[in-house]
Amino acid sequence: MKVAILGYGTVGSGVYEIITNGKSEELKNIEVKSVFARSRDKMHLATDDINEIINDNEISVVVECLGGLNPAYEFIKRSLESGKHVVTANKAVAAKYLDEFVSLAKENNVKFIFEASVGGGIPWLVNLERTRRVDEINRVYGIFNGTSNYILDNMYRNEQEFDSTLKTAQDLGYAEADPSADIDGGDVINKIILSNALAFDIHIEPNFPTYSMRNITKNDIDYLKKYDYAVKYIGETNVADGKYETSVMLSIFDKGSQEAAVELNNNIITLDGSFIGELKFYGQGAGKLPTGNAIVQDIVDIYSNIPRKDVVIKNELVQSNELTSKKYLLRSSVELGGELIGSVEKYENEFYSITKEISLSQLSELTKELEGKDDKYLVAKFH
Amino acid sequence: MKVAILGYGTVGSGVYEIITNGKSEELKNIEVKSVFARSRDKMHLATDDINEIINDNEISVVVECLGGLNPAYEFIKRSLESGKHVVTANKAVAAKYLDEFVSLAKENNVKFIFEASVGGGIPWLVNLERTRRVDEINRVYGIFNGTSNYILDNMYRNEQEFDSTLKTAQDLGYAEADPSADIDGGDVINKIILSNALAFDIHIEPNFPTYSMRNITKNDIDYLKKYDYAVKYIGETNVADGKYETSVMLSIFDKGSQEAAVELNNNIITLDGSFIGELKFYGQGAGKLPTGNAIVQDIVDIYSNIPRKDVVIKNELVQSNELTSKKYLLRSSVELGGELIGSVEKYENEFYSITKEISLSQLSELTKELEGKDDKYLVAKFH
Repeated sequence: MKVAILGYGTVGSGVYEIITNGKSEELKNIEVKSVFARSRDKMHLATDDINEIINDNEISVVVECLGGLNPAYEFIKRSLESGKHVVTANKAVAAKYLDEFVSLAKENNVKFIFEASVGGGIPWLVNLERTRRVDEINRVYGIFNGTSNYILDNMYRNEQEFDSTLKTAQDLGYAEADPSADIDGGDVINKIILSNALAFDIHIEPNFPTYSMRNITKNDIDYLKKYDYAVKYIGETNVADGKYETSVMLSIFDKGSQEAAVELNNNIITLDGSFIGELKFYGQGAGKLPTGNAIVQDIVDIYSNIPRKDVVIKNELVQSNELTSKKYLLRSSVELGGELIGSVEKYENEFYSITKEISLSQLSELTKELEGKDDKYLVAKFH
Repeated sequence: MKVAILGYGTVGSGVYEIITNGKSEELKNIEVKSVFARSRDKMHLATDDINEIINDNEISVVVECLGGLNPAYEFIKRSLESGKHVVTANKAVAAKYLDEFVSLAKENNVKFIFEASVGGGIPWLVNLERTRRVDEINRVYGIFNGTSNYILDNMYRNEQEFDSTLKTAQDLGYAEADPSADIDGGDVINKIILSNALAFDIHIEPNFPTYSMRNITKNDIDYLKKYDYAVKYIGETNVADGKYETSVMLSIFDKGSQEAAVELNNNIITLDGSFIGELKFYGQGAGKLPTGNAIVQDIVDIYSNIPRKDVVIKNELVQSNELTSKKYLLRSSVELGGELIGSVEKYENEFYSITKEISLSQLSELTKELEGKDDKYLVAKFH
């Protein structure tokens, strides 16, 4: 089976390396025929003409590793339309155009698979899909982003400030020059949207409560440590009574929890099923070989004709910001009061308010009150 | 597709409940036709005549939930010989007769699947199998036994002695009246043998280094806590250079590790792949619905004709007890000395010796030295 790889950066080169050097029986019949890359001197199979790939009837699988929306969207669409299976690690394009890609794949009797786009090397989506053959899922949540975890872990263990930690992460190549996607929620938003599609048959817009983690300070970590808490950046969806509630925000875990124990840029993702209870999947959420591996697994599924369950978007659930009642921590330079606040503690000249058990809607009333008065406020959910 | 369940205890009744009450599309075409159980008054489908099931051509899958070696061995064999697929949660019979069952299944063109026998509800074996389609596995290890973890967790968190904790576990139904299989290694031995088969194509005898956990004391836990360590009961196999090394023993982890964070009777199992790095799978390792769920997943694989990879026993690896060099903790009432010991500390009238980095063979020299002098000695590996 012949494959084309679009993009020869970290992930694309990882896919090439695994297909070329892997020793399993399954890989013996998979061959990279062409690589879409800007220049021929990067690797001998490179072409900068996408039409060479689209028009090549020998190529049955296109692996999209370009990232971003364009030209990834166009190339995926054209690949599907020309009867090629598409495998991608690109969460941005998959989350935005999921409906369209799923329909196009169906019309053209090919597969659109995106395992590597969520959790990198962790076999998350395939296990979510597998769980649903028997079980109903009530909840998914997890550390979906390695960069934010690297920053929080470093702040926690090495008592660093956010800015210096971000700089270290950038120097090590864990964070981009513009870190917004990782620390303001964009990356997790895409990953929870894709997880929602497989867990709950919904394709949602990114219009759910999302709070950046960029305001967290060493002082906040110290305050939480005092009570044996760790803080992680979490995407989460809960489902009940025909409703779903999705959010992306900092969440507070007991120091002894599985989430608190996730170091460096690793990920951990949890599903909660009616029969199975909580299953957690831990591993490297990014990187050349882990992500490359997840992509090659998708290719093997196509080659082996494994009947992966089609993504079916039913959108039968209604969005709610009132499904769960949780306590939240709000840290601000101005004091919060009123009915929703349970207790306030002053620590190093900042007010740490813990709310009563409130909804996400009620939380947003509180954060609106802070906007304009203290734009550096922190919000975190007690998990 | 019609199924018979052998045994209607915890697991068997869980399988029945999930098939009957589950709401997924996949379950609509699966029906329990017969249950092998001693009396008809326990459930309406019961028969105490195994021949009724074996001779029923409508039944294409036999689910063995009897436990133990007999009559499970005979019933599995007869089921396979009569062209029925067999799914089992019975690690004892699967670990002992794996070769024979795999051959019989192949001859009769049916499946022998045993996902639920290792890790209960955790999709461990299926992910091990999947990983190997692309990757080579170098190591598997984990907390495979919920009862031993319940005991260690309770001793650690509630500062209890071993005996009182074991009694609590027995009262709660987590431990058997005869706890030997859980605390002396028998259960983990079977589970690591089955994991080895899927990870490394070997079917090994239970003749590898195995140390009971029944000698652990509150004093040991206190000593380890002093250094921010937790201790867990671990099955482990390492593979390199054409050799394998398997052991079952207490192992010492940093307090902040994923393993240390496993509470109650949960399990966590890790694989280390050349490309993928470490993947960890966490969940309920036992119990009616989690284990039942894993069995029903196997049935769905058979129904959906998912091409599960055949277990192929090649036995190309040679057993070694010299593959890894690790530090070990030995606690004894007599003092150890000699070349293999790195340091000794006296704590509450016991000697806590930490070895240099030594092999499992060298460890066994040390424990042989203790036998007869102090039969209550403790041994634990620094993970």
